[in-house]
Amino acid sequence: MISVVIVGTGNVAQNLFQAFDKVVGVEIKQVLGRNENHLTFAKDKASINTDFTQLPSADIYILAISDDSIGLVAEKFKDIDGLIVHTSGATSLEILSKCKRTGIFYPLQTFTKGKIISFESIPICIEANNKKDLELLQNLGKTLSDTVIKVNSEKRKILHVAAVFVNNFTNYMYTIGAEICKENNIDFKLLQPLIEETAAKLDDLTPYESQTGPAKRGDQKTLHKHLQLIKKTHQRELYTLLSNAIKEKHGKEL
Amino acid sequence: MISVVIVGTGNVAQNLFQAFDKVVGVEIKQVLGRNENHLTFAKDKASINTDFTQLPSADIYILAISDDSIGLVAEKFKDIDGLIVHTSGATSLEILSKCKRTGIFYPLQTFTKGKIISFESIPICIEANNKKDLELLQNLGKTLSDTVIKVNSEKRKILHVAAVFVNNFTNYMYTIGAEICKENNIDFKLLQPLIEETAAKLDDLTPYESQTGPAKRGDQKTLHKHLQLIKKTHQRELYTLLSNAIKEKHGKEL
Repeated sequence: MISVVIVGTGNVAQNLFQAFDKVVGVEIKQVLGRNENHLTFAKDKASINTDFTQLPSADIYILAISDDSIGLVAEKFKDIDGLIVHTSGATSLEILSKCKRTGIFYPLQTFTKGKIISFESIPICIEANNKKDLELLQNLGKTLSDTVIKVNSEKRKILHVAAVFVNNFTNYMYTIGAEICKENNIDFKLLQPLIEETAAKLDDLTPYESQTGPAKRGDQKTLHKHLQLIKKTHQRELYTLLSNAIKEKHGKEL
Repeated sequence: MISVVIVGTGNVAQNLFQAFDKVVGVEIKQVLGRNENHLTFAKDKASINTDFTQLPSADIYILAISDDSIGLVAEKFKDIDGLIVHTSGATSLEILSKCKRTGIFYPLQTFTKGKIISFESIPICIEANNKKDLELLQNLGKTLSDTVIKVNSEKRKILHVAAVFVNNFTNYMYTIGAEICKENNIDFKLLQPLIEETAAKLDDLTPYESQTGPAKRGDQKTLHKHLQLIKKTHQRELYTLLSNAIKEKHGKEL
C-alpha cells in the first residue's frame, strides 16, 4: 500500500484524486488546499486539510499545483521525510531542492475542470534522485497507467514544448475553425468527425504522411480562393504562414 | 436502387467505392479512371473502365477527382442524362455547368490512401439545382451517413476553409511536435493520448473553453523557457505567433 497526500485543487489534483480513489494499493491520506471551498471534490471521500503546518505522514506528497506556486509551497514540505513530487511538465526537479527527497510525477495529458478521464493510456513521466524513490514512483504510476517512463528534466521540458504544439496550438486551430463557422452561421459540430479522424490517423501514419490539403498539393488556385474568403487579419496571417510552412516542408522533399 | 458510376482512383474514390459496395440500395455500375493500374482496387468487385467515350447509363455519376480536373472531365459527361456530381469542398457547382443535371456530394472528411473509414458519422454536404436531384442525393447520402445536409456552394467553401484549419493545420502542429521529438530522440507516440484527448474534449466543450497552456494563462516564464528550448526558426516563429494569438484571444475576454 502506497500512501499519498495530494496537494492542490485544480484539474490535475482532481483527476489524480479521482483516479487514485479507484485503485487498490493507494491510500489517499489527505487532500491539501488553501481554500476549503475548493476542496469539496474530495470532502466525502477523504480527509481534507487547509493547514499546511499540520501535515500527515505519507509515502508520497504530490504537489499538483500551478508552476508558479511549486517553489513557495515546497518550502512548507522541507522537513517532511516522505517523497515530495510535482506534476509539472515545464518545471525542473531542482525547484524542490529544499526538500529531503524529491521527484517528478508528470502525467502527459490535458486535464479539464469537471471532466474525469481514464489514466490507463496516459504516459506518466517520472524522475527522482535515487533508485529507491524512482521505484516508488514507478509503483505509484503503475497503479494508474500502462506507460510509466523515466524521463529526465531536460527531456520532460522538451516533451512539454511538443505537447504545447499538439495540444494548445492544435486547440487554437479548432478555435479558428469555430470562429470561421460562427461568422458564417455554420454548425462547428459538423467538423468534429474530421477533427477526430485527423487525430486517429496517427495510429497508422506519421504526421508527415498524414498531411493533405491545398498547401501540401501546392494548389495555388485553392489557396488564393481561400484567402479571398477569409476576412479577419489574424486568420489570414495564420493561413498564409501555415500554408507556406506546409508547402516548404513538402515541396522540399518532393 | 440507385445506380452510380464512380469516376476517379484516388482516396475519395476508393473510400466511396468501398462504402457503396457494402450498402444495400446502391449499385455501382462502373468505376472509371484513365489508368487501368490505378483501378485495381475495384477490379474484382465491379466493372472498371478507362474509356470515357463508353459511358454506361446510371442515376448518378460521382466525379471523385482532383479539383483541377473537374472542369475538364465534366466535358466528357455533357451529353449524359444522369446527375453529374463532384466531391470537392472548394469548387463551385458552376464548374459542371456544361452538363445537363449537376450537383455536389461532398463528404466532409480527410481520406487517406489505403485507409478505409466508416462514413456513418461523416457529414455529407449536398447541393443540386432542383428539388428532385437534391432528393436523389439525399437518398444516396443516407445510404452511407446519418448526417446528410443541404449546403450551398458559398457555405461549402467556408466549411472547407474551416476544415483546412482543423485538419491540415492541426496536422502540421502534429508534424512540428514530431519534429521536436525526433530532434531530441523522444518517441512521438507518447503524445498520442494527449492528441486524442485534445480532439475528444470537443464532445463537451467549445474550443474556446478547452484552451489550456502557458499562453492562455499568460505565463511569461514558461513561454520564455520554451523559446529557449526551441532551436529551429520556423518552430520559434510559430510558437511566438500562436502564443500571442492565444494570449490576445483569452486576455481580451478575461
